[in-house]
Amino acid sequence: MYALGRHILAEMYGCAPEILDDQETVEKIMVQAAIEAGAEIREVAFHKFSPQGVSGVVVISESHLAIHTWPEFGYAAVDVFTCGTRVNPWDACNYLTEKFRAEHMTATEVKRGIFEEPVKVANY
Amino acid sequence: MYALGRHILAEMYGCAPEILDDQETVEKIMVQAAIEAGAEIREVAFHKFSPQGVSGVVVISESHLAIHTWPEFGYAAVDVFTCGTRVNPWDACNYLTEKFRAEHMTATEVKRGIFEEPVKVANY
Repeated sequence: MYALGRHILAEMYGCAPEILDDQETVEKIMVQAAIEAGAEIREVAFHKFSPQGVSGVVVISESHLAIHTWPEFGYAAVDVFTCGTRVNPWDACNYLTEKFRAEHMTATEVKRGIFEEPVKVANY
Repeated sequence: MYALGRHILAEMYGCAPEILDDQETVEKIMVQAAIEAGAEIREVAFHKFSPQGVSGVVVISESHLAIHTWPEFGYAAVDVFTCGTRVNPWDACNYLTEKFRAEHMTATEVKRGIFEEPVKVANY
């Protein structure tokens, strides 16, 4: 079995609420996480909610990073989805866990796009 | 156990390649899927890759929809992540399966943001 992508779903609890509620900081951290993993950034879209919370996505050549924060619970739902073998999604995930100062993080890696025959990811 | 969000990871195989490779069409279908589910759209960011493939995200008040397509394999990796009880992510997922003309779709729903006590989602 061969997979096109690796998708990490990370639950970050006990994060710093003031970081999770600051759109600019969340965006900077997410963009830097993509860079730390060696990804190539294509699109960045973030939104601040009232009274609290930030949602945003970094589209990368290798797929995407997404985040939704609940500062009131110190919680962030983080996705790091990468394809190809050049980028390791765990590099981004570990960076984010540190920067959001998560006290507790659980993550699951899901394989995306499973084929029985070897597949070659298109050359972007 | 209470969860803040519901996240569907859908694998769509046997999709129409000409649809998956058309950024404008993929974007329209994704936006319409959010509307079909009753979500409120906040940000839209899509990117066309060369020689093929489209990646994009629709940030909604209730979280996000994301897609990465591999027209050469007729495959799309689709995420529909919603929070709150007002929007049903399966409405969007079923709409997308139909519009991409997927011959075969498998999906998993993952609960995101699990707390032992009842949580009330912030009023956006």
